[in-house]
Amino acid sequence: MQRIVLPSQDIPTHWYNVVADLPAPLPKPLHPATLEELTPADLAPLLPQAVIDQEFSQERWIEIPEEVRGVYESWRPSPLYRAERLERALDTPARIYYKYEGGSPPGSHKPNTAVPQAFYNAAEGVRRLTTETGAGQWGSALSFAGSLFGLDVTVYMVRASYDHKPYRRSLMEIWGGQVFPSPTDRTRAGREALAKEPDSPGSLGMAISEAVEDALAHDDTKFALGSAMNHVVLHQTVIGLEARKQLEIAGSYPDVVVGCVGGGSNFSGLSFPFLADRLSGARPHTRFVAAEPAACPTLTRGTYAYDYADSAGLSPVLRMHTLGHEFIPAPIHAGGLRFHGDAPTLCALVDSGHIEARAHAQNEVFTEAVRFARNEGFVMAPESSHAVRGAVVEALAAREAGEERTILFGLSGHGHFDMAAYDAFLAGRMEDLELPQTEIEAALQNLPTPATP
Amino acid sequence: MQRIVLPSQDIPTHWYNVVADLPAPLPKPLHPATLEELTPADLAPLLPQAVIDQEFSQERWIEIPEEVRGVYESWRPSPLYRAERLERALDTPARIYYKYEGGSPPGSHKPNTAVPQAFYNAAEGVRRLTTETGAGQWGSALSFAGSLFGLDVTVYMVRASYDHKPYRRSLMEIWGGQVFPSPTDRTRAGREALAKEPDSPGSLGMAISEAVEDALAHDDTKFALGSAMNHVVLHQTVIGLEARKQLEIAGSYPDVVVGCVGGGSNFSGLSFPFLADRLSGARPHTRFVAAEPAACPTLTRGTYAYDYADSAGLSPVLRMHTLGHEFIPAPIHAGGLRFHGDAPTLCALVDSGHIEARAHAQNEVFTEAVRFARNEGFVMAPESSHAVRGAVVEALAAREAGEERTILFGLSGHGHFDMAAYDAFLAGRMEDLELPQTEIEAALQNLPTPATP
Repeated sequence: MQRIVLPSQDIPTHWYNVVADLPAPLPKPLHPATLEELTPADLAPLLPQAVIDQEFSQERWIEIPEEVRGVYESWRPSPLYRAERLERALDTPARIYYKYEGGSPPGSHKPNTAVPQAFYNAAEGVRRLTTETGAGQWGSALSFAGSLFGLDVTVYMVRASYDHKPYRRSLMEIWGGQVFPSPTDRTRAGREALAKEPDSPGSLGMAISEAVEDALAHDDTKFALGSAMNHVVLHQTVIGLEARKQLEIAGSYPDVVVGCVGGGSNFSGLSFPFLADRLSGARPHTRFVAAEPAACPTLTRGTYAYDYADSAGLSPVLRMHTLGHEFIPAPIHAGGLRFHGDAPTLCALVDSGHIEARAHAQNEVFTEAVRFARNEGFVMAPESSHAVRGAVVEALAAREAGEERTILFGLSGHGHFDMAAYDAFLAGRMEDLELPQTEIEAALQNLPTPATP
Repeated sequence: MQRIVLPSQDIPTHWYNVVADLPAPLPKPLHPATLEELTPADLAPLLPQAVIDQEFSQERWIEIPEEVRGVYESWRPSPLYRAERLERALDTPARIYYKYEGGSPPGSHKPNTAVPQAFYNAAEGVRRLTTETGAGQWGSALSFAGSLFGLDVTVYMVRASYDHKPYRRSLMEIWGGQVFPSPTDRTRAGREALAKEPDSPGSLGMAISEAVEDALAHDDTKFALGSAMNHVVLHQTVIGLEARKQLEIAGSYPDVVVGCVGGGSNFSGLSFPFLADRLSGARPHTRFVAAEPAACPTLTRGTYAYDYADSAGLSPVLRMHTLGHEFIPAPIHAGGLRFHGDAPTLCALVDSGHIEARAHAQNEVFTEAVRFARNEGFVMAPESSHAVRGAVVEALAAREAGEERTILFGLSGHGHFDMAAYDAFLAGRMEDLELPQTEIEAALQNLPTPATP
């Protein structure tokens, strides 16, 4: 159970912006109404200026404010572990390392971006933030960050999660967050959805629509997003930057980096600081593997096209691997991975062959989460279990090849609020919920067409 | 949010045994059947020899096995924090530090002793461990430790907790623990209790009786206790030993040390390495404050006498502050503090005036837990909230006195499995459940009388 810790002074001073190093320029985001190129000014009603600047930035390194580093210190640098007991259980010659983000107060990597977003909003005089949450990890993180910077936080929580994970709501409320099950009657988007389907279980896309509409309707309010966008990915690079330093201490460098992908910020945050070496040619053979759920296989079965980030079409239109903004994934336990698209930076790197993707079914990932817990101790979130499954696939391949490969994976959060999922798995009641091809084809019927191709 | 971390090599190499430094010899434990002095041989059916040796040891320092330190490395040294935001919120000149034990895989201080207990049992060929659990933190910790050392673990969980905290049961099962709601029909003690009261909510004393009886009935099985006994307190001293070193780095030493007390091992583990300086005369003015629940006020309202540790009278008889072994505390949310007695070492030091005690009601402790979460981030267990309340009382006294006192308190575990308690508090539905004097007097009617006074 080798643990590599770094002192507080090793918290990174700058975030790494992969946009500066992409092999081709990132496809421009589009305005949702005109489908013309989006300008920074278009985002002003939604985001504070500092965040908009980061969203459009081409700079490689962006300084982390002292106030943000001061809060990061509560759980950062996060520990890097060598999973020696898991290696022995797998009888593999591979060395498996994992970066553990479950030690933050909200229990995941999400506060890495919630804290700077809250900081920049508070600094610009914003009083209230709105956001969406699926499984509740992002809503928890923003409620936590809001409490530290004196911001009210309103969370639109996907109704299915609100009903099935009431304790995530409790957690948000402890930090002062106000939580509504989405769709609500507080927004036009919500009311229209409820009119069509009064018992609607909601979706991430719908919750985003409601949070955006609420923010647009109030001058003192802005919107915060927990994944996908460039600034979110940027903030998450503290994970990979720390991991690089920790592996250096261990005298190591990964042959393969694995992470789970919902919107992609956790995977990207861990990977991009290493991927920089691949893009520069210094480490051309390092592999990067995105592990996604078979029930929401954006990277492995989606199409690479322009699409809205939300179901009502209020948010920027992004070029990404998508299953269609009206797609509603099956109710897998990894609620945080149920997003129809992915971060544009990540998608561009998948499209150009720098990142591989694999999809995993529920029983397969929970099998590995339980094996991990019994060997390494930590009980992980269903989302993270996709990453450990991806790492185990690599470790078994290394055994097959008889090679001492070094595997690094991201353990993005603990599973303390996911016991019902583990209960179902241990009782043999878990379904795999794979996705028929016909459903994908139907979901992809309704993509927007850019004004200027 | 200043965090002081230590590298792995600073995990203590030895536990500190306060028995070597007590101002007077510790009153001898008695055999439950004869009420004569207990011998090490009497414990052989229940505990492995290495643990028995520790239970009776007079040595000041006892070496921590390398295998145990190797597992400790998963979360130790645990971080020490300066609660600067809480200090500002309280407008106090006091410096408040806290030692955070919630980062262990089971989420509390309990694995500090579960791991060595599992290690020693496995080393002596034991195949299975039985134990009791109230709120579930101890049962989780022993299930975790058992999974690492290849031991089966059987947990008798107080029925009321089993019903109200089903997710603590899930957690134990993820690590392979087998959990039964106590009283069960698996033991004579359980069957007799069920015959009297089929819907019995159970008690810690009853669960201990069942676990002891199960262990005595099986040759390959021993019993593990999560608090109170000397060896448990001994193992927990890693907390205070690390905290001493961390405060040295901060250039500080506590004027007062505060912890919550159920059986007393968490408080003692934090306090005793500092209390050694008071006992030696090096730091005679450091104060030690035990924070207990008003619904189970052993130290503030119990009597200092010999009593059984379990309700059926199968366990060693210990001199301690007790409310009587038949006492069943009201169902407060801090289930881990619902024990009728306390660690004999702690009690001897309370009796000799080296440790103070205060009792706190539920609403008062949850008020502080929520204030803490909104300032410092971590959401703590109901048990730990007694410690932060105790620390706040000290911080406000320092403000009153206008003195820059240094306060150290123990944050023994996270509250991720206690959301129902927070829900009740936030909704204004929490009762204080104080204890009438008549109930205490009734509970103290039935104490055993030592054979040789």
